[in-house]
Amino acid sequence: MSSHSTTTAPESSRPASLRLGIAGLGTVGTGTVKIIQKNAELLTRRTGRSIAISAVSARDRHKNRDIDLSDYAWEEDARVLAARDDIDVFVELIGGEEGIAREAITIALNSGKDVVTANKALLAIHGQELAELAEANGRVIRFEAAVAGGIPVIKTMTESLAGNQIKRVMGVMNGTCNYILTRMENAGLPYDEVFEEARKLGYLEADPTLDVGGIDASHKLAILSSIAFGTKPAFDAVEIEGIERVSIDDIRRASDMGYRIKLLGVAQMTARGLEQRMSPCLVPADSPLGQLQGGTNMVVIEGDSVGQIVLRGAGAGEGPTASSVMSDVIEIARGVRLPVFGQPATTLRETQPARTAVPAAYYLRLELADKPGALAKVASVLGDAGISIDRMRQYGHHQGAAPVLIVTHKTTPDAIDHAIEVLPKTGVINGEPVELRIEEV
Amino acid sequence: MSSHSTTTAPESSRPASLRLGIAGLGTVGTGTVKIIQKNAELLTRRTGRSIAISAVSARDRHKNRDIDLSDYAWEEDARVLAARDDIDVFVELIGGEEGIAREAITIALNSGKDVVTANKALLAIHGQELAELAEANGRVIRFEAAVAGGIPVIKTMTESLAGNQIKRVMGVMNGTCNYILTRMENAGLPYDEVFEEARKLGYLEADPTLDVGGIDASHKLAILSSIAFGTKPAFDAVEIEGIERVSIDDIRRASDMGYRIKLLGVAQMTARGLEQRMSPCLVPADSPLGQLQGGTNMVVIEGDSVGQIVLRGAGAGEGPTASSVMSDVIEIARGVRLPVFGQPATTLRETQPARTAVPAAYYLRLELADKPGALAKVASVLGDAGISIDRMRQYGHHQGAAPVLIVTHKTTPDAIDHAIEVLPKTGVINGEPVELRIEEV
Repeated sequence: MSSHSTTTAPESSRPASLRLGIAGLGTVGTGTVKIIQKNAELLTRRTGRSIAISAVSARDRHKNRDIDLSDYAWEEDARVLAARDDIDVFVELIGGEEGIAREAITIALNSGKDVVTANKALLAIHGQELAELAEANGRVIRFEAAVAGGIPVIKTMTESLAGNQIKRVMGVMNGTCNYILTRMENAGLPYDEVFEEARKLGYLEADPTLDVGGIDASHKLAILSSIAFGTKPAFDAVEIEGIERVSIDDIRRASDMGYRIKLLGVAQMTARGLEQRMSPCLVPADSPLGQLQGGTNMVVIEGDSVGQIVLRGAGAGEGPTASSVMSDVIEIARGVRLPVFGQPATTLRETQPARTAVPAAYYLRLELADKPGALAKVASVLGDAGISIDRMRQYGHHQGAAPVLIVTHKTTPDAIDHAIEVLPKTGVINGEPVELRIEEV
Repeated sequence: MSSHSTTTAPESSRPASLRLGIAGLGTVGTGTVKIIQKNAELLTRRTGRSIAISAVSARDRHKNRDIDLSDYAWEEDARVLAARDDIDVFVELIGGEEGIAREAITIALNSGKDVVTANKALLAIHGQELAELAEANGRVIRFEAAVAGGIPVIKTMTESLAGNQIKRVMGVMNGTCNYILTRMENAGLPYDEVFEEARKLGYLEADPTLDVGGIDASHKLAILSSIAFGTKPAFDAVEIEGIERVSIDDIRRASDMGYRIKLLGVAQMTARGLEQRMSPCLVPADSPLGQLQGGTNMVVIEGDSVGQIVLRGAGAGEGPTASSVMSDVIEIARGVRLPVFGQPATTLRETQPARTAVPAAYYLRLELADKPGALAKVASVLGDAGISIDRMRQYGHHQGAAPVLIVTHKTTPDAIDHAIEVLPKTGVINGEPVELRIEEV
């Protein structure tokens, strides 16, 4: 079947088949090769041309990958692969914000190749520079697989909701963190124990702070923010807090009050600038975000016309991530060419980062010392800070201290910070108070 | 700003602005005009050109629509609008499977216009013929707004998941039915009463059987099936059952057993052919589908690589539906041109419709007469049909009959049909048994 009649590029300029060079044959690379081999007929039917692999590269040629690579040229060096004359699209599945991935993509763009990548760190940090390079060369970079695995969030934001002013983007976008938090709750286990479990199961990155420190999810948030708000990707401007200090106590107490704790990314444009934050938040247990178990991801997008759109699916894994890589390959095969972040890179605005100031309700947990008037003192600190209390629970004293839970009415992050600073000075609480934002979802 | 460097069409062939003719100024048409007026700068930034309205048409020129139409030419007849020389895209928001909408779209395609439509009935019934006409003319028809309001399901299926063999598509795609069913449950009200409420609130189509009879949702399912399975849209092949016979009793009993009743559309390709059915089904109360309240829609798509993707959002209303219309307009403005149902219309296969044969668990409710051995007789009918019982509840006798609820293990629709036919002949049950499929979600 030749290319169908409704595509845009002139017949003469289109090669019969779209030729890929795939760099990186880990989980995602292997999954991508499998789809191309297994669904070849379907891909041709849907794109009007065949999708072929010209060459591949990976660290270890002799690793058993359970796929037949014998038809493809092998390159030891991804940068050499990126420069080959017999590829139209360079598929970068190596990862890492610096080094080979960045160099090879630069070579690919400069030698006239389109790029498909799953590399969230690279795009979050060097996305602007790469987008400008791509567009100067008349090339595209597509990256559906970089955010939320199999969930089609990049296409949804860049295309489906492009008629909307985006009001807020939220997401649970690190499956490992969500696995740890739901496992803690379901099994009643402390953080350290579940962290070790996750490590043994191979769920953690080589550097686990990328996951539990919220960095990986923040890379994704920075990419989404850029598309949503027409700003240059600005990973540095994300306020990041990981899940390391989430205790089983807080998970249980929050659950008692109808909430679940999620590592939630939130981006919104305010009059003061772009707020981007990644932090453990409380969400209602019966909300779509609250219902999310295990490694599943969810992105919630709010637009001025569409209202709230929720997307849910596997956030990682061979099949889901490779499905997103193929979404990009198919887009290029069909002749669809969009600006990297949804508008020409040179028109993206500088990000004006703003510390979170949008009011919210907060969850506070503190240990009240067994002293007369202790609760009154706490209440008065909150009152002085302009914080009013929605719900409060004091549990029985145990070893000289009583846990107190407070859910506040909506207040500002500044007011909460002030209260958190003053509370230990009252002498009526033990240790540091815990505060978690309750995100309205 | 002129068109950006990464679009496909040669600069010379692209007009500075994309000129629309909008036919139909009801809720969706009005919403579309509002977005174009309100978000003009954003649309230009994202598409590289301006989106302009050349002309509009509607039944009543003098109706107050709360929008300024004075800059646009007015046509009394949508067919004349479709033929105008000063439009590039004909936006059909009139509705109806025959008559003006169909005629005007045909005129638009034959006179070289692309078409954007929200007309699910037209596409479900005449989609094949219109797709062939469009593609023969080198034109596109886009219809994101035709299915599930603001949810980007057409783009997700046609593009994002195009590397997948689709295994099953499911959806709650009629907000009115979901409103009625959730309202019945939450308020404990019978069907007739909530139906009247919905009518007074203006939630029902002029012909309410389009909603409660499952027809509107089946139009949507037929469109999704075509894209998912590469078959010609075949609305006639959908097995349809509406929500009219869902009783508050069944809603309560199902809830007791951890289920909710939803009007669920399911399409899957089997060895025997394409199964498409729209019927009230039980789904687990804590599943994403079970959690769906009110007018919200949800589509669940299962692919061989991606696993399960869930999309949720407003299924109707001015803003959400207009957002989807604009998604299509933006796609055309960016020079993206895809086959109507995701592959050239001439390559779509004839649909081989198959009656549902995929096994499932079933919910049965029957009224047992107060006779000795009654339950044994029911059990033996089921056993003879090869149906085994997972859970059974008999409630106390009341006026000579006892309600009995049965949840079966997985069995075939044929076995259930046989049992339902035989049960009344035993003489130990009153009236007709109720059976509802329990869809695995």
